[in-house]
Amino acid sequence: MDLMILMPIGAIAALVFAAILAGRVMKEDEGTATMKQIAASIRAGANAYLKRQYISVGKFFAVATILLAVMAVMGQVSIFVPAAFITGGLFSALAGYVGMKIATNANARTANAVQHSLNRGLRVAFSAGAVMGFTVVGLGMLDTSIWYYFLRSFYSDLPIEMQNQLIAGALATFGMGASAMALFARVGGGIFTKAADVGADLVGKVEAGIPEDDPRNPAVIADNVGDNVGDVAGMGADLYESYAGARLSACALAVAAGLGTGGMVLPMALAAVGIFCSIIGTFFVSTKENADQKALLGSLRRGTYISSILVAVSSYFLVNACLGAGHVGIYLCIIIGLLAGVLIGFFTEYYTDASYKPTQILAGESETGSATIIIGGLALGMMSTAIPVIIVSVAVILSYVLAGGYTHGFSMGLYGIAVAAVGMLSTLGITLATDAYGPVADNAGGIAEMSGLPETVRERTDALDALGNTTAATGKGFAIGSAALTTLALMAAYIEQIKVIKPDFVFDLSVTNPTVLVGLFIGAMLPFVFGSQTMSAVGRAAMSIVHEVRRQFKEIPGLLEGTGKPDYATCVDLCTKSALKEMIMPAMLGVVSPVVVGLILGVNGVTGMLAGATVSGFVLAVMMSNAGGAWDNAKKYIETGQYGGKGSDNHKAAVVGDTVGDPFKDTSGPAINILIKLLSTVSIVMGALIANFSIL
Amino acid sequence: MDLMILMPIGAIAALVFAAILAGRVMKEDEGTATMKQIAASIRAGANAYLKRQYISVGKFFAVATILLAVMAVMGQVSIFVPAAFITGGLFSALAGYVGMKIATNANARTANAVQHSLNRGLRVAFSAGAVMGFTVVGLGMLDTSIWYYFLRSFYSDLPIEMQNQLIAGALATFGMGASAMALFARVGGGIFTKAADVGADLVGKVEAGIPEDDPRNPAVIADNVGDNVGDVAGMGADLYESYAGARLSACALAVAAGLGTGGMVLPMALAAVGIFCSIIGTFFVSTKENADQKALLGSLRRGTYISSILVAVSSYFLVNACLGAGHVGIYLCIIIGLLAGVLIGFFTEYYTDASYKPTQILAGESETGSATIIIGGLALGMMSTAIPVIIVSVAVILSYVLAGGYTHGFSMGLYGIAVAAVGMLSTLGITLATDAYGPVADNAGGIAEMSGLPETVRERTDALDALGNTTAATGKGFAIGSAALTTLALMAAYIEQIKVIKPDFVFDLSVTNPTVLVGLFIGAMLPFVFGSQTMSAVGRAAMSIVHEVRRQFKEIPGLLEGTGKPDYATCVDLCTKSALKEMIMPAMLGVVSPVVVGLILGVNGVTGMLAGATVSGFVLAVMMSNAGGAWDNAKKYIETGQYGGKGSDNHKAAVVGDTVGDPFKDTSGPAINILIKLLSTVSIVMGALIANFSIL
Repeated sequence: MDLMILMPIGAIAALVFAAILAGRVMKEDEGTATMKQIAASIRAGANAYLKRQYISVGKFFAVATILLAVMAVMGQVSIFVPAAFITGGLFSALAGYVGMKIATNANARTANAVQHSLNRGLRVAFSAGAVMGFTVVGLGMLDTSIWYYFLRSFYSDLPIEMQNQLIAGALATFGMGASAMALFARVGGGIFTKAADVGADLVGKVEAGIPEDDPRNPAVIADNVGDNVGDVAGMGADLYESYAGARLSACALAVAAGLGTGGMVLPMALAAVGIFCSIIGTFFVSTKENADQKALLGSLRRGTYISSILVAVSSYFLVNACLGAGHVGIYLCIIIGLLAGVLIGFFTEYYTDASYKPTQILAGESETGSATIIIGGLALGMMSTAIPVIIVSVAVILSYVLAGGYTHGFSMGLYGIAVAAVGMLSTLGITLATDAYGPVADNAGGIAEMSGLPETVRERTDALDALGNTTAATGKGFAIGSAALTTLALMAAYIEQIKVIKPDFVFDLSVTNPTVLVGLFIGAMLPFVFGSQTMSAVGRAAMSIVHEVRRQFKEIPGLLEGTGKPDYATCVDLCTKSALKEMIMPAMLGVVSPVVVGLILGVNGVTGMLAGATVSGFVLAVMMSNAGGAWDNAKKYIETGQYGGKGSDNHKAAVVGDTVGDPFKDTSGPAINILIKLLSTVSIVMGALIANFSIL
Repeated sequence: MDLMILMPIGAIAALVFAAILAGRVMKEDEGTATMKQIAASIRAGANAYLKRQYISVGKFFAVATILLAVMAVMGQVSIFVPAAFITGGLFSALAGYVGMKIATNANARTANAVQHSLNRGLRVAFSAGAVMGFTVVGLGMLDTSIWYYFLRSFYSDLPIEMQNQLIAGALATFGMGASAMALFARVGGGIFTKAADVGADLVGKVEAGIPEDDPRNPAVIADNVGDNVGDVAGMGADLYESYAGARLSACALAVAAGLGTGGMVLPMALAAVGIFCSIIGTFFVSTKENADQKALLGSLRRGTYISSILVAVSSYFLVNACLGAGHVGIYLCIIIGLLAGVLIGFFTEYYTDASYKPTQILAGESETGSATIIIGGLALGMMSTAIPVIIVSVAVILSYVLAGGYTHGFSMGLYGIAVAAVGMLSTLGITLATDAYGPVADNAGGIAEMSGLPETVRERTDALDALGNTTAATGKGFAIGSAALTTLALMAAYIEQIKVIKPDFVFDLSVTNPTVLVGLFIGAMLPFVFGSQTMSAVGRAAMSIVHEVRRQFKEIPGLLEGTGKPDYATCVDLCTKSALKEMIMPAMLGVVSPVVVGLILGVNGVTGMLAGATVSGFVLAVMMSNAGGAWDNAKKYIETGQYGGKGSDNHKAAVVGDTVGDPFKDTSGPAINILIKLLSTVSIVMGALIANFSIL
């Protein structure tokens, strides 16, 4: 039996399951008229933003597709690349859109459900997250299925080895559309959400002294919209991309390693099995009525762990079925991937959660003011890079060795690394559900606050929301870890691609080759420049919101007293405009760098650049995400009454830390993952161009 | 004629010139009794710190030397390594000590000389800087001279090719002593100076509201001591090390490139010629009485530029004399090195000086509080990495190509890169003079303030001091640039070393080799962990000063009214203790990492680690140094009356930025340069151990 059939089956199962969950969420009541109205405003804002984002990105895609078509005619890229570029972008965008749609429909419903019971609220929010999670994996698998079967039939006249080589080669170039879309979604959404958040906080909380999520704040709707377009749609597109990149590069490496069809089937079938295991896992997410935060977290964790264990068990048989007996090493790579994901997630939590030492110590550093808490947070972030690097290092070496890199050849080892990446991402359906749950709960809390629901309801939404920070942190750790492994696999796929395109090309990828070395230097610098661009963008966008909110407070009579009505739409509109304007340059950096570096330094230089960007980007992304998370939670920790509590000087210092951390953890840090993947996918597509026309 | 003789001649010339200048400085009058007394306190504090630092470091050296001796007996390192390790450390320490000695003797003399005329003050401060500069280059050359002639006579029975190979191989391992000493000096001094500075500011300026350098502040002497032990002794040891590393690795690569004795002579003779050119350059540093800051800066620049031009001209003949005709490419490498140094220095200034846009814009970001100026500074620092990376990249590629890397073989190209590094450092005597001038002027200002000299004198010392920030910034850019090129040369020397130790070793330095890749990951992470360690260390040390200063303000009656006498010594002592305690762990990271990584991942992994640490360390160091410099100058810019001026909310926000920037620019950032060099020199010494005993 051709196990590749699991791929479309898995795709359909995921999408059907997502549809069922979506139906169940939509059946819930949205609550009072006020709640409905607020939810409608958020939905309208999010829709408006996404619509305009897609128009902007559509223009980029149109131009890029034409360029790719010209290159295809000139024989510099495969003839399928232009169409695959579009489908990748389209499906990724669709995944983000569906996720955002359900999230903006579930927020008020969660707030309302929580009035009945905590468990019911949890189920609604988690189901909404799961809709997003399974849509991402479903669409990702669907895209690959369509192309795989199309290419298989297109090349059906050729011998099977040749078919495999051509299919793998074509598939390897198909990640670029998803990467580009992901970068736009992440950067645009990240700028939107943080501009609104910082803007709302700086004027509302600090200057006017009104609480968070107060309906009098003109930026409050924009802030809630931001949670959806940034955290939901952005995260969805990001992981859609890793999910595609890991599987496609594993396919390419399977052919290079001489594993034939079975080797190509394994990553796809593994992902399919992961979907079924994730679906089973979701049924274990529920909680008792009087659950504390720990129990709530435990219930979410239970689902993920059960899914992981199921994958660990069933993939043993899958490896045997795909590759035949005697490939225990490859099986162990899957386990390594699963474990590495869990471990990175745990240490992300350790460094950013206030129930552990590092964040508690950080909170204490507010005692001597904002400067020391900033220094402390940066130091924490920098220190927190060590363990994830060691985990990834161990995973890479072990996968390589166990897959047979030293005994069965280089490509076999690299295939093992790619399989580990697919293993890590196999439970993406439920991991992403846990992650996307956060913004829904956050929004639910906002809506509860704005519509003046009773204190007990707010306590429950707070309990749900508090969890969101932890799941977001582990989700980010997971996204970063998978990005690192995926990028390594993509880098290896890049080299395979060049070998196919230009069989006589002489590689010198030694780190002492000056073009590689210079590539490493430039690659190491790119994430820093990208981080700078995105942080500055947030700063500029936030500034425009600050001015607008100040203007409304001044010009709209009775606004602060609650008699005037704030103009939410203008703030949403301003955020939209800023985000769309500011996302262009960082995205261009990712698209243009491989081409420019490639045309000057050649293939060796590009490979150096990819390696440099991967290692420095990984470290920088971990540092920024964790520093940001720790600042946020240190502030929340102080708000629980520690170190003087809310309103104290310590709290003010912690707010400064949190504000610095906002673009760190929600814009720049996570977007760096996508940058390094985009650099790889663009390099792969431009492989022929660079191999043929470079100067050095 | 054997031009190698230029090396000892240059060494002696530099030392004699330094002695003459020192004599001239000491002839100046130290001023009033108060000035003498303050200067004596600073001197005593600095002496006490250095003495105890040398005892601590001495213990480390004793243990390390015994270990090296054991390894030498076991045949794992050359028999000369233990002795060379000691001389390297000793000479580096001596250079730092002399620099600190003259700086602490010149501060009051500068303050006094400025009473007569601005030019006289400039001459005294600059001469003190030059004593340090020429002591560093003189001792550096002396150390190499002694060893070179000793080894030459030791191996005199062997054929000349073999002599060269053995000498070059031995010399290549001699950088470790200087590296280790430099790291201790830089980290210890950096922690001392910033702990004192932050501590003095947080309690004195912010809490008690007394001005900077006020004699009532118990930490004020410690602060001034810090300028000397951190900025003077630390910087001296740092550049001593680059100066050694660049020349020694160029020597090793000359033999690998088959250039023989002539190729070994060139870097040494070039450095010697650079000494003479630098001596000539110093005579052009003088200014008119009514000079503004621009004219003062111009006078310092004039000296450096004239020296550079003289080197550029004379090295043409030198290359011909050493290598024979037809090596224009190598000559051009020298020019590239000189130019790259000047360019990196310029762009460092561009990003950190308030006369340019970036720092002015940064100052404006104080308008919305400390969070935005922090984000702005980080973004500025990250963006500022692009141009230096491009300059280094262009320098590397051009040097490699021009030296004949593609036509005359790989080693020839790497030799070109090493020669470029030596070229950049050839004018170190005067560059370092300009740099070490800063802390002297800074101290002079402090003494003028503390001893209540008239306003006009203080204006003049302020003018001298303001310059110090710019020269320090360009000096740091120069230190970073030379560290990058030196580390690349050391990395190449490392590989040559392994080839000699284990001729049958099969290199696979490809970035797709998992051990190299993992090495890159770990290498990229090390500077971040190191940065975290050093920043946290400053935080802890500063905290102890804060408590001590608060205690004194509370317990010593009449202290704030000026009737009680502060206990300066306790603050100095606390800083000393903290610095010595805190410098151990970061230094260990540099020493232990190559051994641990090497024993697990082997030679390929170590090379990856060196490459990863170099590229990520370079970028991180530039980012931290420039962000720190820009925050400092943005604060000063606001103090000139921009954006609300001194005491405004904007100013307070800028002070937060400056405080965060302190450990960035004066502890972590510059120490990262040394870390990456230390990693390389330790790897070279441990080469045999790793090649013989590694797991992978």
